[in-house]
Amino acid sequence: MDRPVIAVTMGDPAGVGPEIVAAAVGLGELHTVARPLVVGDLGAVERAAERMGVTAILHAVQHPEQGRFAPGIIDVLDLDNVPADLEIGRVQGAAGRAAFDYIARATELAQAGAVDAIATAPINKEALKLGGVPHLDHTGAFAALTGSPEATTMFVLDGLRIFFATRHLSLRRAIDDLTVEGLMAALRHAHEQLERFGFVRPHIALAALNPHGGEAGMFGDEEIRILAPAAAAARARGIHVTGPHPADAVFHMAKNGGASAVMSLFHDQGHIAAKTLDFDRTIAITTGLPFVRSSVDHGTAFDIAGQGTARWLSMAEAIRAAAEFARRARGANS
Amino acid sequence: MDRPVIAVTMGDPAGVGPEIVAAAVGLGELHTVARPLVVGDLGAVERAAERMGVTAILHAVQHPEQGRFAPGIIDVLDLDNVPADLEIGRVQGAAGRAAFDYIARATELAQAGAVDAIATAPINKEALKLGGVPHLDHTGAFAALTGSPEATTMFVLDGLRIFFATRHLSLRRAIDDLTVEGLMAALRHAHEQLERFGFVRPHIALAALNPHGGEAGMFGDEEIRILAPAAAAARARGIHVTGPHPADAVFHMAKNGGASAVMSLFHDQGHIAAKTLDFDRTIAITTGLPFVRSSVDHGTAFDIAGQGTARWLSMAEAIRAAAEFARRARGANS
Repeated sequence: MDRPVIAVTMGDPAGVGPEIVAAAVGLGELHTVARPLVVGDLGAVERAAERMGVTAILHAVQHPEQGRFAPGIIDVLDLDNVPADLEIGRVQGAAGRAAFDYIARATELAQAGAVDAIATAPINKEALKLGGVPHLDHTGAFAALTGSPEATTMFVLDGLRIFFATRHLSLRRAIDDLTVEGLMAALRHAHEQLERFGFVRPHIALAALNPHGGEAGMFGDEEIRILAPAAAAARARGIHVTGPHPADAVFHMAKNGGASAVMSLFHDQGHIAAKTLDFDRTIAITTGLPFVRSSVDHGTAFDIAGQGTARWLSMAEAIRAAAEFARRARGANS
Repeated sequence: MDRPVIAVTMGDPAGVGPEIVAAAVGLGELHTVARPLVVGDLGAVERAAERMGVTAILHAVQHPEQGRFAPGIIDVLDLDNVPADLEIGRVQGAAGRAAFDYIARATELAQAGAVDAIATAPINKEALKLGGVPHLDHTGAFAALTGSPEATTMFVLDGLRIFFATRHLSLRRAIDDLTVEGLMAALRHAHEQLERFGFVRPHIALAALNPHGGEAGMFGDEEIRILAPAAAAARARGIHVTGPHPADAVFHMAKNGGASAVMSLFHDQGHIAAKTLDFDRTIAITTGLPFVRSSVDHGTAFDIAGQGTARWLSMAEAIRAAAEFARRARGANS
C-alpha cells in the first residue's frame, strides 16, 4: 500500500493547533509512513511555522492529488478562513467556526476516498458553541457528519490498545451502569473494530473492577455477577475474550503482546495505564466511523498558544497512528 | 553511612523464595549499596543456589556482625529449620512455620538495631495457618510483633512513590468509605512517613476519583464534597498537599519529579500506575513499623518453585529499596 494520505485538521486557530501541526509535519519524520495534508488556513500555518522555527516550504493545494508529500514541505489545503489579526489565546466564535470547517472538509475528503484517514488538532468546546456549531466536540461532529451513532474511543500506545466500556461518567455511576448486556455490546464492538483493523481472531483481555479481580467475591461481586457472565456470553458468540484479569496485571500483559486489546471498565482505568506509561504518545482513535480518525489527547492550551513553545510530539504520533490504522484497515479489507 | 545491613527473609521454603533470594544475593550487584544477610535455612539456600546456577560461596553466620557482605558470598543466618526432603511446590504447615520463624528472627534483629531493614521473600497464607501461625500475612505479623497498628503500604518505583487511602475493599466500598476525616488521616500518615524518610516539606499529590477530576461536579461530586476539603484541612495543618489532580495525569507528574508522592484513593488506582509502568520493579514498603521493611509484590509461585526458573529481579529490587529507605531514615534522624 502507498503511504496513506492523512488529512491533518489544523484545530482552533487561536490555540496551539497551527503550531503543533506545522512542527509535526514540517519537522517530524512522518513522510516515510504517511502523506500528511494539512486542512487549515495557509497564513495561520505560515505564522505558526515561523514561531516554531520550522523552515519547511508551504505548498498550497486545492485537492489532495496536488500534494508533494515530501520532507521539508508542508502541503496545506487552504480554506482561507482565518483573519491575519485573529487574537491568539482566546475563546472566539470565529475560531470555533473555522475549526469546524476543517473537520467538515476533512470528513468530505475521507468520505470521498480522497484521503485515507484524519488526524485532528485540538478544538475548544466553548468556541464551537460561540461559533454556532451544533456539535459538542470532535466525536459528536464526526458522528453527526457521517451518521455513526456508535462512534467511540480506543487508546493506542505502541502495541497497547485499550477500549472503554464507559467513559465520561462518575466512577460510582460507571459501576452502577455495568450490565452483562452493556459489556457484551462493548466487547462485540471492540471485536468488530479489531477485525476491521486486520487482527485475526483478536484476543480481548477484560479488566476486572475490584482489587485482585474481587478475590472470589471477597472484595466485590461484580466479577461474578457481571464480568464473567459477559465474557462467557461473548465467547459463546465466537469472540475471543479472557478474564476478568486483575487490572494491575492486564495492561502489563497486553503491552507485552499477551492480548490484542484490553477492555477497560471505566475512564481512568485505561487512562491511568496508558498516560502513566507515556503521557505524550497516548493517542485516541475514534472507532465506529467510516474512516480512521486519530487525535491528540490534550486541549487547545490557550495559555501557551502563540509563543512557539507547544510540544508537538503528540500531534506527530497522532498522524503516525492514523497512518498505521488506515494501513491496517486497508489491509484487512483488500 | 555504611551500606545498610538488610535482613532478607527466605520466605516459604516450598515456594520460589529460596531461589530468588539465592540469585538476588548471589548474582545481583547489591553489595555496592547494601549488606544483605539471608535469614533462612542454609541447606535450602544451597540447594536453591545450585538450581539457579549461582556459584557464590555460602557463608553461615550466627550474628550479623559475622557477615562478609562481599560479591560472590551469600551470608546466611541459618535457622536450620527445613528438612532436606521438604516437598517443594506444596502448601505445608512446616514450611509456613519455618517462614514465620525467619520473620520473627529478622524482627528481633531489626528491633535490636543489629540490621537496618528487612526485605521479605513471599510466604503463603494457607501454609501459615496450617503451621499454627496466628497472623494473616506479612503486614499482620510485623504489626503484631512490633505493636504497630498503623502499618500500611507504600509503593516505590524509581522516583515514583504511592500511598493508598484504601486497599483491600471492593471498588464500590472504597468509594463509600471515603470521608474527609479518613483521607486526612491518610494524608497525615503519608506526610509523617515521608518526613521520616528524609523528605523536607514533602509534596503529596492527591489523586482524584472521577474522570477529569469530576470536571467541576459534572462527573461525580466526591472531589467537591470530600477530596478538596480534606486537602484544604491537611494544608491548614501544615501538610503540603495539592490536588485533587486528574488520576490519568497525577502519576505522570509524580514520576517526573512533580511531587514527593501520590495519594491514591483505591487499590487499583496506584497499582495500575506502578505495575503497568514496571511490573517487576514495583516494590512495596511497609510504613508505620519501627524499621523499614520492603517486599516483592508476588506470591510463592508454587507452580514453578524448585525448577530454577524463577525471576529474581523483584527480590533484588526489594533489597535495593530496603537499603535506600533505611539510608533515608537514618539520614533524616541523624
